[in-house]
Amino acid sequence: MTTNDTTALKLGQTAAEIAELVGGELQGKADLAISGIKGLREAGPEDLSYLDLAHAKYLAAAAATKAGCVLLPAANRAVACPARARIYVPDTQLALAALLDLLAARRRKAPPGVDPRAQVHPTARLGTGVSVGPFTVIERGAGIGAGTVIDAQCYVGENARVGASCRLYPQVVVREDCVVGDRVILHAGAVVGADGYGFHTDRKTGRHRKIPQLGNVALGDDVELGANTTVDRGKLPSDSTTIGAGTKIDNLVQIGHNCRIGRGCLIVAQVGIAGSTTVGDYVVLGGQVGIAGHLRIGDGVQIGAQSGIMTDVEPRQIVFGYPARPHREAFKLQALYARLPEMHAAIREIRRKLGLGAGDPSQKPEA
Amino acid sequence: MTTNDTTALKLGQTAAEIAELVGGELQGKADLAISGIKGLREAGPEDLSYLDLAHAKYLAAAAATKAGCVLLPAANRAVACPARARIYVPDTQLALAALLDLLAARRRKAPPGVDPRAQVHPTARLGTGVSVGPFTVIERGAGIGAGTVIDAQCYVGENARVGASCRLYPQVVVREDCVVGDRVILHAGAVVGADGYGFHTDRKTGRHRKIPQLGNVALGDDVELGANTTVDRGKLPSDSTTIGAGTKIDNLVQIGHNCRIGRGCLIVAQVGIAGSTTVGDYVVLGGQVGIAGHLRIGDGVQIGAQSGIMTDVEPRQIVFGYPARPHREAFKLQALYARLPEMHAAIREIRRKLGLGAGDPSQKPEA
Amino acid sequence: MTTNDTTALKLGQTAAEIAELVGGELQGKADLAISGIKGLREAGPEDLSYLDLAHAKYLAAAAATKAGCVLLPAANRAVACPARARIYVPDTQLALAALLDLLAARRRKAPPGVDPRAQVHPTARLGTGVSVGPFTVIERGAGIGAGTVIDAQCYVGENARVGASCRLYPQVVVREDCVVGDRVILHAGAVVGADGYGFHTDRKTGRHRKIPQLGNVALGDDVELGANTTVDRGKLPSDSTTIGAGTKIDNLVQIGHNCRIGRGCLIVAQVGIAGSTTVGDYVVLGGQVGIAGHLRIGDGVQIGAQSGIMTDVEPRQIVFGYPARPHREAFKLQALYARLPEMHAAIREIRRKLGLGAGDPSQKPEA
Repeated sequence: MTTNDTTALKLGQTAAEIAELVGGELQGKADLAISGIKGLREAGPEDLSYLDLAHAKYLAAAAATKAGCVLLPAANRAVACPARARIYVPDTQLALAALLDLLAARRRKAPPGVDPRAQVHPTARLGTGVSVGPFTVIERGAGIGAGTVIDAQCYVGENARVGASCRLYPQVVVREDCVVGDRVILHAGAVVGADGYGFHTDRKTGRHRKIPQLGNVALGDDVELGANTTVDRGKLPSDSTTIGAGTKIDNLVQIGHNCRIGRGCLIVAQVGIAGSTTVGDYVVLGGQVGIAGHLRIGDGVQIGAQSGIMTDVEPRQIVFGYPARPHREAFKLQALYARLPEMHAAIREIRRKLGLGAGDPSQKPEA
Repeated sequence: MTTNDTTALKLGQTAAEIAELVGGELQGKADLAISGIKGLREAGPEDLSYLDLAHAKYLAAAAATKAGCVLLPAANRAVACPARARIYVPDTQLALAALLDLLAARRRKAPPGVDPRAQVHPTARLGTGVSVGPFTVIERGAGIGAGTVIDAQCYVGENARVGASCRLYPQVVVREDCVVGDRVILHAGAVVGADGYGFHTDRKTGRHRKIPQLGNVALGDDVELGANTTVDRGKLPSDSTTIGAGTKIDNLVQIGHNCRIGRGCLIVAQVGIAGSTTVGDYVVLGGQVGIAGHLRIGDGVQIGAQSGIMTDVEPRQIVFGYPARPHREAFKLQALYARLPEMHAAIREIRRKLGLGAGDPSQKPEA
Repeated sequence: MTTNDTTALKLGQTAAEIAELVGGELQGKADLAISGIKGLREAGPEDLSYLDLAHAKYLAAAAATKAGCVLLPAANRAVACPARARIYVPDTQLALAALLDLLAARRRKAPPGVDPRAQVHPTARLGTGVSVGPFTVIERGAGIGAGTVIDAQCYVGENARVGASCRLYPQVVVREDCVVGDRVILHAGAVVGADGYGFHTDRKTGRHRKIPQLGNVALGDDVELGANTTVDRGKLPSDSTTIGAGTKIDNLVQIGHNCRIGRGCLIVAQVGIAGSTTVGDYVVLGGQVGIAGHLRIGDGVQIGAQSGIMTDVEPRQIVFGYPARPHREAFKLQALYARLPEMHAAIREIRRKLGLGAGDPSQKPEA
């Protein structure tokens, strides 16, 4: 890491201790002392690394690694790896996450209490152990659950409710009346509850009259919103834009008013979902996908990056393209698109053979 | 709404009173007491709902609604609706907006005055009734018009001028010298007047030298900018990036330096417009549209979501696609694209019939 | 400029003085007094303008300009221009930049010192001449290099290191441990070092478990990040997401965790690069380009606006499209796509001629 190196984030355990920690089977040198965790190509004899089989290209890296210890998939013992200590686990990513959790837990915690430079309204209710950073504003009637950390320069609006054990990074905005579940993470610059994009256009004058946006946003438990992501509030006083429990949203995503996003979805960076669209549970949206308004995306749908969705999508479909189609069909059409030059030449040859015109396809055939 | 329900946003009027308020014709139960405003599917016997004919799918919802009172289009009396009170109006959206305005007006107003934790430079000029929230900074020589509300944690730069009756939500940035009209709404995280993207690249070294960006941004009256939207300042000291009066811009939109956007435009989320492009009046840009720099988009143009614009567009054209084309042509090409498999098979069959090669279209025909 | 006009940004020099300043050759009226710098169409007899040959459409503007003085390309003396003073220079943009630098230098400087309303941790190390604006937070152990200006409401996290002569505009976030080089410019709302988008999904429950993101971001010298742009931190404690020296990034761009972006790149607005992708030196990415994760983009590659990149790209390729292809091929395919109606009609005609079916291509041929 190109940084002021600290010792705080080093493991300092033996291969055997790590194997026990992650519930893996150790082969090789049990007393090997491990300090860092690095990628297969960057790791040295004192480092632990791991093989992520999701990317086949890392197999070669595993065979060539200089890492002293490597987490390897128990289901695939044939993978070549010269590390002196090899730990076989059911799921290398999961084992890695456990070790990273260990390091993360050593980081300095935000101290509980309200920074004297924060402004918390006397009617706001703060749970036990809440931490509020400097220059943060918590408005009248807002509620913050126990153990939640609100960093510097955040804004929590009137009557908003943030659950327990949440983390709001610096400069997050949660506007009035919005509701945030427990263990929610909001990254810097995220805006929850801005007005939905609602206007009434006068047909004669072309003037756009603002329709007040009086609903809220409701984020379920364990939701994560990326940096500078925006989720607009519902239109009617009784409308919520909802993000289901466990849904993880990346940076710079836009969720329009009155959308209902299901549970356990993965929504990658720069996706945009227009208003009043319903997205089912466990849906995966690739980066920069756009979804029109008032649609219904079924449970378990997967949509490829940059796709454009203009119609409903049935549950468990895998689609991509612009407009999006089932992925087999979309792949086939893409392949044929690349063969347009051949098709064009073949038509030209046939026309010549049949004596149809000059065989010049730039002239419109007299159909 | 999944929230701490308040009584502040309930109508508390009879169907007859509401009909008078919106100038509609009441049929049915005049003294029905209405409390909430909800969607057709969510409303109950004490709620008012409305039919938006822009979406045909809501016709069935109107026929099945449990709402006590429904706003219906006067021009279309045949619409089936079992509500005990039915109010016929020329425009249901407009009637709804009037009712929502009524509720919005009951919300707590930001108190006039400067929060003691704001920092307002002594040379800044504030109109009567201006409200400035905590931790907001208003720099030297800036001016704020009467009745404008600037929420917490905003930044208004040196010599910037914000008009009257504006609303800046938390964490808006208006950089030095920028000019904001009257009744403008800037949502949280919007950035007005960041440097344009201007560099001079040395052909020998490849080094990019920054070209100072010394112009400003000028937002017309009644403009609205969405959350985390960015509008860059002009390049030369005399250059303004301008957004015309009444233009409404959604979240996460990028407007490049020296763009001139007309009046009354609708620019949906995540649109990007590169520098020095001129957009006419009453233009509609769908979500994620990209427009290259130095182009001219005529008045009244409509561009479909995700389209890519690389050439000028004549007034009143409706275009979409990548690259964008007139919409009839674009639809036709999309339809033919979906029939590439048939076309490919037909060519194959013809070649076989004519004894041209093996009929295997994967072999390049010897044209 | 639609603004409160100041005299601060006027040149106040003669054509001869300006010619000397930019090292150009003057033809015409040497003692012409120049006040403003304006575009060819906006300039008047007291203004200086310039011809940018990158856009051919400005040739006509040069011939019709009312500017008193114009910067013209020395290599192209035949360009018609009626200005009373004409200054021939090797590079008009470079000469313009020098003049704008002159004006920019006259702007008010942020005074050195820490605003009493900022919160700087006692262990933070500030170089000489550092300026820290109100409501800015600089956390424990952070370091700020000499001459750096940090505007109002910024956040610099624990142990983060910002180099010398940088400018952080209002409301920038640099999270803990991140490293920023010298002469870096971060525009308002930029977020450096938010968590990467890393989750482990349990196949049985579908639950997404967060993988702690313990690396950092390292920005090279002379990097510029646009407003509301986000760069995520690396995953492992030893991982950096890196942006090479001299790379200029526009607004609303997303750079995923563990990306390695080379030196001298130009990355236009709303580009998204998924995690672990390596981008070479001097790469140019047009607006709204999307690049998938774990790819390798070679040195000197140029990618057209809105393209989608799903495979590695060899050095110095010029590609565009979705999926992106070498630009000649992509242009050819686009041209043939536009001729699908002709191709379709030709097939229909041939089938009729050969007595194949009804010639109705909507029926699937029995291949």
